[in-house]
Amino acid sequence: MRPSGRATDQLRTVSLEPGFSKYAEGSCLVRFGDTHVLCTASVDETVPRFLKGTGLGWVTAEYGMLPRSTHSRTDREAAKGRQSGRTQEIQRLVGRALRAVTDRAAMGEKQIKVDCDVLQADGGTRTAAITGSYVALHLAFQHLLEIGAIKRMPLTDAVAAVSCGLYQGTAVLDLDYAEDSNAQADANFVLTGNGGIVEIQGTAEEKPFSEAEFNALLGLARKGVDELVALQKAALAVTT
Amino acid sequence: MRPSGRATDQLRTVSLEPGFSKYAEGSCLVRFGDTHVLCTASVDETVPRFLKGTGLGWVTAEYGMLPRSTHSRTDREAAKGRQSGRTQEIQRLVGRALRAVTDRAAMGEKQIKVDCDVLQADGGTRTAAITGSYVALHLAFQHLLEIGAIKRMPLTDAVAAVSCGLYQGTAVLDLDYAEDSNAQADANFVLTGNGGIVEIQGTAEEKPFSEAEFNALLGLARKGVDELVALQKAALAVTT
Amino acid sequence: MRPSGRATDQLRTVSLEPGFSKYAEGSCLVRFGDTHVLCTASVDETVPRFLKGTGLGWVTAEYGMLPRSTHSRTDREAAKGRQSGRTQEIQRLVGRALRAVTDRAAMGEKQIKVDCDVLQADGGTRTAAITGSYVALHLAFQHLLEIGAIKRMPLTDAVAAVSCGLYQGTAVLDLDYAEDSNAQADANFVLTGNGGIVEIQGTAEEKPFSEAEFNALLGLARKGVDELVALQKAALAVTT
Amino acid sequence: MRPSGRATDQLRTVSLEPGFSKYAEGSCLVRFGDTHVLCTASVDETVPRFLKGTGLGWVTAEYGMLPRSTHSRTDREAAKGRQSGRTQEIQRLVGRALRAVTDRAAMGEKQIKVDCDVLQADGGTRTAAITGSYVALHLAFQHLLEIGAIKRMPLTDAVAAVSCGLYQGTAVLDLDYAEDSNAQADANFVLTGNGGIVEIQGTAEEKPFSEAEFNALLGLARKGVDELVALQKAALAVTT
Amino acid sequence: MRPSGRATDQLRTVSLEPGFSKYAEGSCLVRFGDTHVLCTASVDETVPRFLKGTGLGWVTAEYGMLPRSTHSRTDREAAKGRQSGRTQEIQRLVGRALRAVTDRAAMGEKQIKVDCDVLQADGGTRTAAITGSYVALHLAFQHLLEIGAIKRMPLTDAVAAVSCGLYQGTAVLDLDYAEDSNAQADANFVLTGNGGIVEIQGTAEEKPFSEAEFNALLGLARKGVDELVALQKAALAVTT
Amino acid sequence: MRPSGRATDQLRTVSLEPGFSKYAEGSCLVRFGDTHVLCTASVDETVPRFLKGTGLGWVTAEYGMLPRSTHSRTDREAAKGRQSGRTQEIQRLVGRALRAVTDRAAMGEKQIKVDCDVLQADGGTRTAAITGSYVALHLAFQHLLEIGAIKRMPLTDAVAAVSCGLYQGTAVLDLDYAEDSNAQADANFVLTGNGGIVEIQGTAEEKPFSEAEFNALLGLARKGVDELVALQKAALAVTT
Repeated sequence: MRPSGRATDQLRTVSLEPGFSKYAEGSCLVRFGDTHVLCTASVDETVPRFLKGTGLGWVTAEYGMLPRSTHSRTDREAAKGRQSGRTQEIQRLVGRALRAVTDRAAMGEKQIKVDCDVLQADGGTRTAAITGSYVALHLAFQHLLEIGAIKRMPLTDAVAAVSCGLYQGTAVLDLDYAEDSNAQADANFVLTGNGGIVEIQGTAEEKPFSEAEFNALLGLARKGVDELVALQKAALAVTT
Repeated sequence: MRPSGRATDQLRTVSLEPGFSKYAEGSCLVRFGDTHVLCTASVDETVPRFLKGTGLGWVTAEYGMLPRSTHSRTDREAAKGRQSGRTQEIQRLVGRALRAVTDRAAMGEKQIKVDCDVLQADGGTRTAAITGSYVALHLAFQHLLEIGAIKRMPLTDAVAAVSCGLYQGTAVLDLDYAEDSNAQADANFVLTGNGGIVEIQGTAEEKPFSEAEFNALLGLARKGVDELVALQKAALAVTT
Repeated sequence: MRPSGRATDQLRTVSLEPGFSKYAEGSCLVRFGDTHVLCTASVDETVPRFLKGTGLGWVTAEYGMLPRSTHSRTDREAAKGRQSGRTQEIQRLVGRALRAVTDRAAMGEKQIKVDCDVLQADGGTRTAAITGSYVALHLAFQHLLEIGAIKRMPLTDAVAAVSCGLYQGTAVLDLDYAEDSNAQADANFVLTGNGGIVEIQGTAEEKPFSEAEFNALLGLARKGVDELVALQKAALAVTT
Repeated sequence: MRPSGRATDQLRTVSLEPGFSKYAEGSCLVRFGDTHVLCTASVDETVPRFLKGTGLGWVTAEYGMLPRSTHSRTDREAAKGRQSGRTQEIQRLVGRALRAVTDRAAMGEKQIKVDCDVLQADGGTRTAAITGSYVALHLAFQHLLEIGAIKRMPLTDAVAAVSCGLYQGTAVLDLDYAEDSNAQADANFVLTGNGGIVEIQGTAEEKPFSEAEFNALLGLARKGVDELVALQKAALAVTT
Repeated sequence: MRPSGRATDQLRTVSLEPGFSKYAEGSCLVRFGDTHVLCTASVDETVPRFLKGTGLGWVTAEYGMLPRSTHSRTDREAAKGRQSGRTQEIQRLVGRALRAVTDRAAMGEKQIKVDCDVLQADGGTRTAAITGSYVALHLAFQHLLEIGAIKRMPLTDAVAAVSCGLYQGTAVLDLDYAEDSNAQADANFVLTGNGGIVEIQGTAEEKPFSEAEFNALLGLARKGVDELVALQKAALAVTT
Repeated sequence: MRPSGRATDQLRTVSLEPGFSKYAEGSCLVRFGDTHVLCTASVDETVPRFLKGTGLGWVTAEYGMLPRSTHSRTDREAAKGRQSGRTQEIQRLVGRALRAVTDRAAMGEKQIKVDCDVLQADGGTRTAAITGSYVALHLAFQHLLEIGAIKRMPLTDAVAAVSCGLYQGTAVLDLDYAEDSNAQADANFVLTGNGGIVEIQGTAEEKPFSEAEFNALLGLARKGVDELVALQKAALAVTT
């Protein structure tokens, strides 16, 4: 029934390629099927002004799409001179997701800037970005541990994300573009390895949905995130 | 326990003042306690380019805060030359919420631009904005009906919104600023008069929350939105 | 003869509502008929760089119109990414008017930022803004006196403003929109309680005017400003 | 008494050099002492949208200062990415002044764009700009007459401008920078060859001024503008 | 002597990976050692206004760097709201280089937009971008040929580019970052497969260089471009 | 054969007018025929951040064109809110050219900002700008020497620039606009008084050119720059 032939509760083929970037302190190329996002984590010794002197660190994120990552070309935001509302929404979401599993006192007064750049987009770029960013951030923290810049790992749990939606009346996991552009409703779930909810963003595209439908989506998301967290662990195991 | 002394499931005093603006086709000053938002709905005979020739209309929203609507002064976005990510997130949310209850074929090829301007901000400005915008939009459609520009009311249901959050370990309804800035988690719920879910945005500010906690928030939201929808009906009854 | 039926030397109904805003140190909602402007005065402990170390304070103003304050909707400046030339002209005028009656040494090195936001516009928004801003500024200074942050009231005189114009060959006081958009010439006068001239801006819209005509406008303005200053005093008397 | 040794009612040495620019349809380099402004008038076959189909033309102006036209260097507006409020105020003033003496029906649906670029600034750049722009505009209209693009000269009168101010308690004509930066009050007068008033902008810099003082400034301005108009005529006589 | 141990006339390891992007009509991931640039060519049915009705097509290019493509993180241009002068210089160069080998009449009135996005930067990004863009452009034209949208291949010759410089007194080919940042002079050469010169940009970083030195650089460039053109041919042979 | 009737190796009439601007520390109005550029050099006591504490100075340049310097009017960059890529390319070029002959240690930690503003443009504005800027910069340094702010002249050589191109198959010196817009190829050469090469920018406009053609252009440039440097010396001799 799904355009891709997947089962309703089946993720796309997911791969996490840590260390894709030579220079970043942490990096990961994440692929959810044909959605490919390069995530890099860069250490910055300065914190935003409101944190100066507090002993706390900060994790922030930026997001962008290459102009031809999309099915038809999208205008370059740098050329237009402004980031779209969608871009800002996504990068704020990624930053919040990562901070929710970060002990900022353990970081000390430093900042990690995570860049999520979409090389190819087939739906679900924001959930792929969160999933890959966690790996990049973990690697950057490992690097800081190795050089003695921090004393303990600031990450308190894993975090990953997946979208679910109502497609032709059925709840399905991990929407691709063909599904996303025809879904009755869709929701992005950011969950932790321990099952905590970090963020839920559910939107009725066409008509309102019911609580039962919402619970079905959440159930699928739990299954999907559990699988993503296992992949994150496997990817990080390789690098240490 | 709440700074305001309210019960956990108690809304702030809400008022809806239709027709606040002399010139707009529809308008409503909405107050959720000390949060005051002026909503105006303006009819525009042109639709966005992607709708030309489709016979469908459009409803969009813009949001702004007066610089001293806030406890301490916020820089004016027009002077800074850009709208913040937060502003864009909110105005996109308001537009989606209104479109979810609008039969765009019934509008014909015209556009309603809803402006939500915060005169005073004590938390919950986006939920107040949605609640008041529905009234303003309804009035603008009534005006179009009266002058014969449309044949039937395009609104298919009422829509209202409220925030809920975990404050000191307890689920509470309709957070004010004192609660919002100290909540462990908060969520905005956009629901229809018939109980449908239009949008859910839940965020863990401090630590992840559980599904049980989330369901408690949703339960409170249902109660709150039911009361808001009753107030919307009462306000609209006066104007007709 | 006037669209409103007013006498040539008659102001619109003017009201000044001090303390309209809960958070601002000083505020006033001013109404000149259907023109409504919310003026807030915010205390800022920093001065512009060119005043650092001089012992002098600063008063500045910003101006904006809500998009649907006008008869037909005006684009939002924050969304366009720039303030218009008209906006900048007006906010510079308001700032100069207020500084002309302020003893900046008595303020010490602090700044008052006055925001004038037009909720509804029926002509004369800049003159209403000046008239209301004086009240808001006075209240902010009173607040600073009460908390001991300044030693004496820095305001040396009252200041108010009104527009006059040649409408169908006759000099009239306090133009509303219907008159303003058809005036042969119009002028804005900023005068003090003691009769001093702070600012005159006279413009021939259609054809040049004579010195005699100009003097007739100035005469009307004196009468109008005297009445406005009396209203300012009455409004401030209530608050102390 | 004046830093320059001029009499109180004495203009600086003024020169008007028509045809300074090789390519513009009309141009004039105007010098008020050390203030030098290059004015060019460019014919554009398109009118602003609000005039399409009305048969009326338009005259507009833009203003800029070379970064080192000033005593110390000013940042380049093109590099900052925005025109200052002052720049916008001035270019709007120049445009209004020129339109006040233009019969826009006689132009037909075309536009003249006047550029006023300050090569050197020693006070009074806006009044010099208006005075020189009239000459440039006249030359552009002459050109259009010569090629048969218009049937009659659209200019109905000459227009020129000068500033006056209260300097050390005395009313003086045509302020230079040394006077302008220390004046108690100053005013810009835009007057026509026939003595009509086009625009008055008077500002108290330090303390309010009286009606008698204002009348003294206006009297000086009349004398100055009469001399400027005579120089305009002489300059234009040479070119025809 | 070179930090990389290469011979003075030795390119880095170069690879060209055609079809890297799933959606673009033409694409190529080019690697000059650790410099990796993703080039995509997108077909657009509209031409710039100055070409409407001429029967000629257009090829243009845009360039960007991922924030952490560089050794230390560079601010994102989309977030800063403007493209740097360097970015604009490079994208103009790439566009000119491609147009120099394109028969724009053979394209008909369509446009190819080439995007060059640097995934990793170790010097020479602009020369890699030109070399890879030629392959992407070729593939896009092949696609247009295959679908019958054009009648003949518009490319008249191959084009590739390489940088050369004076490093520690010696002329060397294909500078990497370690060399580039310490070179006395460097030059970028854009040459065609037939040996024609399309563009030369030589700059003395530290002290002027001589004609003999310049000729040595040009000689190296010829050798390098010949090798690059052979690699382009091999890469394109695979795809047809 | 050349539109102007000049010999192939003949410069336009060049004049250098030092001290054109009253306020700048150094200035020069340079004319290459009908191309007129006003160059000013302004001393600034602050250096860019990356030079703080290094003891080295900085020379930078900005470039602009008056809107009607061109044959038909060009939009004002300050009004558009951004400098074009061409503008940025040129001002970066001028800055590099001047720094190549400046001993930045001899300057101490100060900055010279050179502004090149085109009053009239008939081709070759960037080469005229470099040639005139050298004179302006020299005068600013002389001024610093005279007031004792620096100990020795930081300029190590003269620098000047000229364009050459292939026009109707022939190499010609110093292209004017009529030639430039029809040239098969053109190149800008920045050379020093001692014959060193500072910058070469050669571009095939229409079809690639050969090494022999390039060498012919370089030969012409040498002749032209030698003449320009002699004129620079003569102009500077007058001022000392």
